[in-house]
Amino acid sequence: MARIGIIGSGGAMGAALISVVERSDHELSGGIDRGGDPAGLADRSDVLVDFSAPQALEANIHAAIGAGIPLVIGTTGLEARHHLAIDNAARAVPVLQTGNTSLGVTLLAHLVREAAQRLGPDWDIEILEMHHRRKVDAPSGTAILLGEAAAEGRGIAFADNTERGRDGQTGARAQGAIGFASLRGGTVAGEHSVILAGEEERITLSHSAENRSIFARGAIRAAEWLVGREAGRYRMDDVLGL
Amino acid sequence: MARIGIIGSGGAMGAALISVVERSDHELSGGIDRGGDPAGLADRSDVLVDFSAPQALEANIHAAIGAGIPLVIGTTGLEARHHLAIDNAARAVPVLQTGNTSLGVTLLAHLVREAAQRLGPDWDIEILEMHHRRKVDAPSGTAILLGEAAAEGRGIAFADNTERGRDGQTGARAQGAIGFASLRGGTVAGEHSVILAGEEERITLSHSAENRSIFARGAIRAAEWLVGREAGRYRMDDVLGL
Amino acid sequence: MARIGIIGSGGAMGAALISVVERSDHELSGGIDRGGDPAGLADRSDVLVDFSAPQALEANIHAAIGAGIPLVIGTTGLEARHHLAIDNAARAVPVLQTGNTSLGVTLLAHLVREAAQRLGPDWDIEILEMHHRRKVDAPSGTAILLGEAAAEGRGIAFADNTERGRDGQTGARAQGAIGFASLRGGTVAGEHSVILAGEEERITLSHSAENRSIFARGAIRAAEWLVGREAGRYRMDDVLGL
Amino acid sequence: MARIGIIGSGGAMGAALISVVERSDHELSGGIDRGGDPAGLADRSDVLVDFSAPQALEANIHAAIGAGIPLVIGTTGLEARHHLAIDNAARAVPVLQTGNTSLGVTLLAHLVREAAQRLGPDWDIEILEMHHRRKVDAPSGTAILLGEAAAEGRGIAFADNTERGRDGQTGARAQGAIGFASLRGGTVAGEHSVILAGEEERITLSHSAENRSIFARGAIRAAEWLVGREAGRYRMDDVLGL
Repeated sequence: MARIGIIGSGGAMGAALISVVERSDHELSGGIDRGGDPAGLADRSDVLVDFSAPQALEANIHAAIGAGIPLVIGTTGLEARHHLAIDNAARAVPVLQTGNTSLGVTLLAHLVREAAQRLGPDWDIEILEMHHRRKVDAPSGTAILLGEAAAEGRGIAFADNTERGRDGQTGARAQGAIGFASLRGGTVAGEHSVILAGEEERITLSHSAENRSIFARGAIRAAEWLVGREAGRYRMDDVLGL
Repeated sequence: MARIGIIGSGGAMGAALISVVERSDHELSGGIDRGGDPAGLADRSDVLVDFSAPQALEANIHAAIGAGIPLVIGTTGLEARHHLAIDNAARAVPVLQTGNTSLGVTLLAHLVREAAQRLGPDWDIEILEMHHRRKVDAPSGTAILLGEAAAEGRGIAFADNTERGRDGQTGARAQGAIGFASLRGGTVAGEHSVILAGEEERITLSHSAENRSIFARGAIRAAEWLVGREAGRYRMDDVLGL
Repeated sequence: MARIGIIGSGGAMGAALISVVERSDHELSGGIDRGGDPAGLADRSDVLVDFSAPQALEANIHAAIGAGIPLVIGTTGLEARHHLAIDNAARAVPVLQTGNTSLGVTLLAHLVREAAQRLGPDWDIEILEMHHRRKVDAPSGTAILLGEAAAEGRGIAFADNTERGRDGQTGARAQGAIGFASLRGGTVAGEHSVILAGEEERITLSHSAENRSIFARGAIRAAEWLVGREAGRYRMDDVLGL
Repeated sequence: MARIGIIGSGGAMGAALISVVERSDHELSGGIDRGGDPAGLADRSDVLVDFSAPQALEANIHAAIGAGIPLVIGTTGLEARHHLAIDNAARAVPVLQTGNTSLGVTLLAHLVREAAQRLGPDWDIEILEMHHRRKVDAPSGTAILLGEAAAEGRGIAFADNTERGRDGQTGARAQGAIGFASLRGGTVAGEHSVILAGEEERITLSHSAENRSIFARGAIRAAEWLVGREAGRYRMDDVLGL
């Protein structure tokens, strides 16, 4: 049982995090939003979970180090200098920073890397995703993450080997390419499939999210895993022991 | 039991047609290819199945009318003058011309039309297809056919309401659009899904072909259905009673 | 815009109904639960939606007739005498009774009936469903409903033509049978697929529910559709114009 | 390039093996069936592939050892004494024996083991398979193989933890169980899905075979991999480096 403090409690993700903690064995030590004091929150917490904004990162790191407690960072939009600050913090306390806190997606990426490595380049890799009608970009960040895992497994450079937005006279598929296709509609929370298509057989590795609370659940799982660890920078892969 | 004559017997489709007839209760009255005589074939047949070339169409029609027997036309690449010739032939004998002889796809298009008509425009329609790695265009002709059925059911113009090749900053989905996405890989014979995505529920209507012989099977089914009909121009929908 | 009264407001479905009405253009005229007075609610409503209990049905019907307003009945566990009472009520006011208020499932059943009718008995019909780990019976009521639609389309008696719970030495599939298979796991709200498997091709018709609110949404859609209709007994099919 | 000899050349699998060798860079050194002489075949081969019958196994092993060449054994119905004979042979030459030669299924089993190990017992595991209408048993041998991989990953005894043939009042899903469901219809060559269903998210790992030639292809891949290896008993996992 850990006392968990939420930074960025006013957002949709903050509400989801609070709801997950309240239904868990852990204790909610408090939540702060813009203008709140992270140092006070850190003093009464065993771990902090930060889904706020890049400009708040420095103060949040400072609070965690001051209290000597771990920090989960799910804030997006981080730049090189933020990552540098995180690396420095990781010398003092355990820090886990990630762009996707879902355990299922983390495992899927691991399996995709493995499959792409084992199967030769004559197995074509395609990545399909579906999201709700309001999503404004394609393919999804998670689809890109899965494509990068496939490229890593296959030992090729991701950026040079994608086929996106097929339409019209495309010509035959490029050998070794990683293809992407995006569906949009309704209220779909997020579905991803990685298809490895060989000669007369196919392997499909998929993840389906029923709603966005899985990201909150994964972040809290990361927080409880982080309590009692040595100082260092961790990834979601570490939480799953991958 | 009918005596079935195959025109275009030398191609891949011709071989598939012969194989289907030989495994059926029907009799193969013969097969001709480039340079063969359709009139002789027609005289010993109850029905002709033509998967040859547009330039052979006139002679084939002439042979069918001469023998007073029906004609199934699966030849692709037909132009306006060919359709005019078919209309004329249909005054004398039963003629069924189609770009897709699969019974499954024919039924699927019918169901898609029905679903799109019954569900309001707040159900987003997406069409996904997967084909083998050598296919050079996207989306597939069958995906287009399914999209046209959806547009017809919804009462909108197909050409003005498609979203194809999503990639990058696409913006939110346009209300009422019909979206397309294409996957390519391996040796997949052809898979199509029409997704109708509403508020928190989804209907998916799919067709999967294990190989291309289903087109031969559908053509022979059309041929047997055509024997004994009145003169007229028919469609695959008629064979299924749709 | 209609004034909608909810009977059975205290249950999970009641809460979902209230939430849907509040987010709609309609007005919530009130909600009652065990011991509440349906007559008073009926007097200030344009339509009643009843998801309560069989023993409350008589009083609810009496209230609707007294106020001369339509009634949607989603209560389960009805017996022959309840259906008789509903038939009588339908001579005075419009009544819609159904075991499944989802628009998507209603349409799917219609498409399944159509497909089973058009395709001959050499297309095998299989019904697959997946639900959360706490569900205690198999197959689901909706799977049965879809199987009945398939049997109706094919013109066979449902009860004599099912294959359920395959395990061990089953022998080959019986010609004309409708097969069922059930998956259980996680928190899946409900997924159903009807597979029509022919020679080397397959049609799959599926419905996926993201959560249970679609049943509330469908019930409210039925309620608004019912306002202003003639007295009579209606089905969800009527709401969709099927 | 290797000279490959086929034992059991008269069966359906034998024909598929010959076809794969003929379309490969390898040379078909010959094929024998019941009554043929394996020693003569071994003398002009670099590797033998045996899909014949258990009673022929001893002679085939003898031939391989006599010629000092490797042996792939895909024969089914082996008993303890056959496995003993194979173990003995593996001291003299490289031998690979397996019940499933598909590369895709081999990899899928590996990924399932990994996923089951990483995800806790609160992720429910379900295995779904579909095969053609003539299959007489359920679940398929490959489904069992995948279930065993899942049980191994999770560290539980397979036999004590299955739920099969759900039908009627099943009660809630048993914690930690591995569920099975079987679909039968049409001409489906073989589809398998392993579903890991957690709280509001799901991972699905699937394999789809377009036809049975993938087993022949995998066997030939195993044969070419075996040429030049040290004596020993190998598995399909070794061919893929798993």
